[in-house]
Amino acid sequence: MSIRVGIMGYGNLGRGVECAVKHNPDMELVAVFTRRNPEDLKILTETAKVYSADDAEKMKDEIDVLIICGGSATDLPVQTPRYVQWYNVVDSFDTHAKIPEHFENVDRAAKESGHVGIISVGWDPGMFSLNRMYANAILTNGRDYTFWGKGVSQGHSDAVRRIAGVKDARQYTIPVESALESVRRGENPELTTREKHTRECFVVAEEGADLARIEEEIKTMPNYFDEYDTTVHFISEEEMKKNHSGIPHGGFVIRTGKTGWEDEHSHVIEYRLRLDSNPEFTSSVIVAYARAAYRMAKEGQTGCRTVFDVAPAYLCAAEGAELRRHML
Amino acid sequence: MSIRVGIMGYGNLGRGVECAVKHNPDMELVAVFTRRNPEDLKILTETAKVYSADDAEKMKDEIDVLIICGGSATDLPVQTPRYVQWYNVVDSFDTHAKIPEHFENVDRAAKESGHVGIISVGWDPGMFSLNRMYANAILTNGRDYTFWGKGVSQGHSDAVRRIAGVKDARQYTIPVESALESVRRGENPELTTREKHTRECFVVAEEGADLARIEEEIKTMPNYFDEYDTTVHFISEEEMKKNHSGIPHGGFVIRTGKTGWEDEHSHVIEYRLRLDSNPEFTSSVIVAYARAAYRMAKEGQTGCRTVFDVAPAYLCAAEGAELRRHML
Repeated sequence: MSIRVGIMGYGNLGRGVECAVKHNPDMELVAVFTRRNPEDLKILTETAKVYSADDAEKMKDEIDVLIICGGSATDLPVQTPRYVQWYNVVDSFDTHAKIPEHFENVDRAAKESGHVGIISVGWDPGMFSLNRMYANAILTNGRDYTFWGKGVSQGHSDAVRRIAGVKDARQYTIPVESALESVRRGENPELTTREKHTRECFVVAEEGADLARIEEEIKTMPNYFDEYDTTVHFISEEEMKKNHSGIPHGGFVIRTGKTGWEDEHSHVIEYRLRLDSNPEFTSSVIVAYARAAYRMAKEGQTGCRTVFDVAPAYLCAAEGAELRRHML
Repeated sequence: MSIRVGIMGYGNLGRGVECAVKHNPDMELVAVFTRRNPEDLKILTETAKVYSADDAEKMKDEIDVLIICGGSATDLPVQTPRYVQWYNVVDSFDTHAKIPEHFENVDRAAKESGHVGIISVGWDPGMFSLNRMYANAILTNGRDYTFWGKGVSQGHSDAVRRIAGVKDARQYTIPVESALESVRRGENPELTTREKHTRECFVVAEEGADLARIEEEIKTMPNYFDEYDTTVHFISEEEMKKNHSGIPHGGFVIRTGKTGWEDEHSHVIEYRLRLDSNPEFTSSVIVAYARAAYRMAKEGQTGCRTVFDVAPAYLCAAEGAELRRHML
């Protein structure tokens, strides 16, 4: 019998989950819940149904895991503790500073209802966190570096779009190659914000807008750009559509460290992602953890979990003996 | 209270474990067991004692985890099921084809005695296996590549040393850069053995030996070299000692895969290790899993485990809440 999956929220992430479920033959998409009018929402999976988010509770016997695809700012802090009352859930909560609080809220609700909730799943937090942890556990005497990109930052793109005279904008975060190389050589550099990443903006301006003023406003924007070297390109709407409609991302987690009685040997652990589609990759991670949530709940586990708490074998459709035979 | 560690066998790996324990303040090396005369063995840790391997059983109340540092060919198949009678154990069994059998033997003995045994820990099998599994769970529609090196292959070095006229030899396995690049570009190449790695040998010949014959014997040696492009360098003993006494290794695990409703997006997951000392890195992984074995046993778990079965949080000295706060 398949693992029956529900999706709460059908934006980029929800659609990505739908695609990922298609790539996992032991899973089946049963329902998509939306805050829009369900009749207006077209989904890709013919066998799944669209329901109003208000009806979520009613499907509790039809769905094994509900994947919550809301935003971290206002949706997930409310939705995840709420829906874990009725479902095993997975979310991608990514406000790092608020993870402890979110964990407690979900843990309390999940234990009360007897479900499993896995939070903060994706690649950062998620696979990057895992790689930071494994590398720290191995090289206890070392140093961590995380670089992001090259990729689109949604938050920075939005910030540029809010500037007067900007019609559309796309911001790429780009790791500085020479900094990366220094880290890889084990030089343990101290890197400032400016030395780690550059930012590149592609901007469609309104007709007659003051381009010099827009460029200045971008480059001096506090928190978002002022600590970085930023390049601004003004382009046409057509060019934006043609060359910048994708949502690529990726990055590097590197830990360098020493071993030996006198710290005489150096090591470099590097994890790298190159992603054509940030939301689809994130969704693919989430769907693997939905399988884990299902299996852990079946074993009688309850409460909140993060990627740190999930044994890797729960993620793969294959059974333990097969994994040992073919993947170990 | 510290986790009390014992080491069975004091070769490169055992010595590496000793160094790794020093880097983990929550652990303490209590005993080293050897098949040599204990009085002849000098270890680095002043507070630890050396015992005969025959006395291993006697320490069972003094040691929380015994790390078994024997060879996979003949030692571990006997030692791990034997010592798990008395101890929680970790080994680095790396004969991939015999892992299922070893697992069953250790599992049976561990369940009978009420201990935890974690087998096949290190980087391959070990961290490479984990990365293969995570990447497979995420990108179900994709392709795996593993490259090894640049690094010293002990088995191949030994094979060259067995040739008549060879006094000493060191063999490096080297990944082919163009093949790596093709994989990273997502071209999904079909790669033959020859296209993935080259082999480089440094040989100290006996005086008057027929160098051309030695070179020919190396290059045509079945299984070890005949399927590879091999370069042979004859060097002096001094040069060998000066430039080739280290045991570096490393490699790459790469998975490329597609997501999207019509497989329209490509992704690359890459994990890379660059190790100055293969045995010390392996030991560092093993010691992290010794912590996991200790914790799992404390929870009442018994039986055999591999890296696939161990939730990452067990590996780090820090507690769950701290990990979520700082590493997620």
